[in-house]
Amino acid sequence: MPKISKKGQNMPESPIRKLVPYAETAKSKGVEVIHLNIGQPDIKTPEVAMDAVRNNTLEILEYSRSEGSQEYRTKLANYYGKCDIDVTADQIIVTTGGSEALMFAIGSIADTADEIIIPEPFYANYNGFANASGVEVVPVVSNFEDNFALPPVEEFEKLITPKTKAILICNPGNPTGYLYTKEEIKKLAALVKKHDLFLISDEVYREFAYDNVEHYSILQEKGIQDNAIVVDSVSKRYSMCGARIGCLVTRNNEVHKTALKFAQARLSPPTLALIASEAALDTPQSYFDQVITEYAERRNLLITALKTIDGVKVATPQGAFYCIVQLPVSNTEDFARWLLEDFQLDGQTVMVAPAAGFYASEGIGYDQVRIAYVLDKKDLLRAVEILKEALRQYNA
Amino acid sequence: MPKISKKGQNMPESPIRKLVPYAETAKSKGVEVIHLNIGQPDIKTPEVAMDAVRNNTLEILEYSRSEGSQEYRTKLANYYGKCDIDVTADQIIVTTGGSEALMFAIGSIADTADEIIIPEPFYANYNGFANASGVEVVPVVSNFEDNFALPPVEEFEKLITPKTKAILICNPGNPTGYLYTKEEIKKLAALVKKHDLFLISDEVYREFAYDNVEHYSILQEKGIQDNAIVVDSVSKRYSMCGARIGCLVTRNNEVHKTALKFAQARLSPPTLALIASEAALDTPQSYFDQVITEYAERRNLLITALKTIDGVKVATPQGAFYCIVQLPVSNTEDFARWLLEDFQLDGQTVMVAPAAGFYASEGIGYDQVRIAYVLDKKDLLRAVEILKEALRQYNA
Ligand SMILES: Cc1ncc(COP(=O)(O)O)c(C=O)c1O
Ligand SMILES: Cc1ncc(COP(=O)(O)O)c(C=O)c1O
Repeated sequence: MPKISKKGQNMPESPIRKLVPYAETAKSKGVEVIHLNIGQPDIKTPEVAMDAVRNNTLEILEYSRSEGSQEYRTKLANYYGKCDIDVTADQIIVTTGGSEALMFAIGSIADTADEIIIPEPFYANYNGFANASGVEVVPVVSNFEDNFALPPVEEFEKLITPKTKAILICNPGNPTGYLYTKEEIKKLAALVKKHDLFLISDEVYREFAYDNVEHYSILQEKGIQDNAIVVDSVSKRYSMCGARIGCLVTRNNEVHKTALKFAQARLSPPTLALIASEAALDTPQSYFDQVITEYAERRNLLITALKTIDGVKVATPQGAFYCIVQLPVSNTEDFARWLLEDFQLDGQTVMVAPAAGFYASEGIGYDQVRIAYVLDKKDLLRAVEILKEALRQYNA
Repeated sequence: MPKISKKGQNMPESPIRKLVPYAETAKSKGVEVIHLNIGQPDIKTPEVAMDAVRNNTLEILEYSRSEGSQEYRTKLANYYGKCDIDVTADQIIVTTGGSEALMFAIGSIADTADEIIIPEPFYANYNGFANASGVEVVPVVSNFEDNFALPPVEEFEKLITPKTKAILICNPGNPTGYLYTKEEIKKLAALVKKHDLFLISDEVYREFAYDNVEHYSILQEKGIQDNAIVVDSVSKRYSMCGARIGCLVTRNNEVHKTALKFAQARLSPPTLALIASEAALDTPQSYFDQVITEYAERRNLLITALKTIDGVKVATPQGAFYCIVQLPVSNTEDFARWLLEDFQLDGQTVMVAPAAGFYASEGIGYDQVRIAYVLDKKDLLRAVEILKEALRQYNA
């Protein structure tokens, strides 16, 4: 029997997936599982987007252009303009989700055994994309106590080797909810300039910034146009994760040309989803105002409620819709499984994402979980109630 | 300025793309370009598929399951059953086009510097997928004179090294239109068994078999269930290339599990396209009968017409909708450019795909072009007329 590749063996399983069988067991026993573990928003997709799909009159569902249509990219450039990001349609490649933009970015700048430095905890699939490209992830720890702020520049510099090709950040962060300040972005900019590295910024949660803090994109930072690569997506912005449309934005012409070759090999992004995404750009501001208000309220409510539990600590996220929660247990993987296998409160339990899977360093994060607040407030409060009682029983 | 990767530099440009700027020049001069160069069918997408999209009542466009929904995979297994291919829903992973299935297959079985043997000429993007994975393509020449039949087994064996992981075939072939016989598949099966290799078969053109010859899938061949991996797609079958839905089918559980991890990292195939693809499975047989008849007629007409041109030779394709044509010129890249830059017949010219780009070996195919017969018969005939006059002038 022929063998699978080492790369395939090393392909990490998502930290969330591992628990799925246990959730299924719980459900099969009639226990309702409240999902705090996934980033699939419950917010409605803008009607303007779904209407465009429903009203399409295509007779042939043809390939679209590999880099996305001129019209869509022009409108996207206009969207960026409103975000104070000055880019042209020619600096954008439309991708199949932010996921594909990440793969194109990594493939364009790093070869086998090259290294990319990423502050941890980070979006777990970065591991998968790096592994698929044969690239090494080098983590730099950001701390719960600092709310997961940018680690000191010296910590990055310690890790830079001749193989280092890029620093990858997620802003605002999944799973941390941390929103980098302008000062932090400036520090990173100086760092990548000094060491001639790329700076990849995953900004798929750009709109989700609370407390009137403004998101500062690496594309707003002058002087790093050859270093900066932004990964973006319609998934969270318009609550249309299933569309699978994202983009890669860079002013570096070599990177653009290279990523385009990756894009051409896979032919085209999904045409129906492009129709939805182009229409979504006409979503009224009121939609976002409502959504941001809703998420901010959920965050406040969730954090306040969690803090009433003995031994629980919560970092204060200013963006995205996740937070890292420290629990009074030594192994949250065990606890999360126990929640699904052995616990229920009046027929309900909760599913959380153990945080260790978001760290590349061994031995960190075992007392942490990630919670996504993509549920309505009533369910969120109920989930915290369940968690509280579960922790009491688990620790008894 | 930071540098792009070697992999990025080596990423091949599609042989078709190179000519696009020249086609644009022609159009800007008011010359109409008849496209014989691309595989985008002109056939209408089944209405049942487009209607399902138009009638969708989704309020949230959510991620779908990474491997595709149980329902869709169950229906797909049923489709395979009708093709005499006995597989279960659990042996299928739904992908973003056949393109992604190819990437998952290569990533699951081959590491950096591993080798995959492919009969040439082959679908040019295999080069891109292999390169993106750090894998080497090892070509084995199939000959124009033999209609591009399977090269002798000894030719494969000469090329097998400890780094060889798989043989990749395309059946029916793009760009050759060659349909492998049952006997050829049996030879390949024995070969991969003997050398413990994977056999990847790209069967995206399965339905397009003419002259009442039946397509024989590697999944119909007994005794290679651990070796066989099929790449499939809705793109051509239902003329819905823009959907971006394909699948990877294997009975090898290790490969399945590994490919699934790649699928999970990129989250999900496009949801709207899944709706279309699931509905497309209800396309009436009459649709296919009509389409196959149409393509077969075009093929006959095209080949007959081409053979009337002095010095032109055509291989006889029995499948897909491409053929390789040998022209009385020494460099078809130059000729193809000349057609766009310097030639017109009553305001029209043709665009062909120079075939050298479909060969990995240097120096082969320079007198060949690939022609796709995805135009109606009138246009096809006119295209041949233009080609005839162009060859006369070019060679004068
Ligand atoms: C930080 C981050 N980046 C990228 C993605 C990929 O999203 P998509 O491929 O749906 O655009 C996600 C999805 O959850 C994410 O959280
Ligand atoms: C032989 C072959 N394989 C795979 C593909 C990829 O098709 P898709 O990604 O649209 O399924 C094509 C497209 O032209 C092809 O010709």
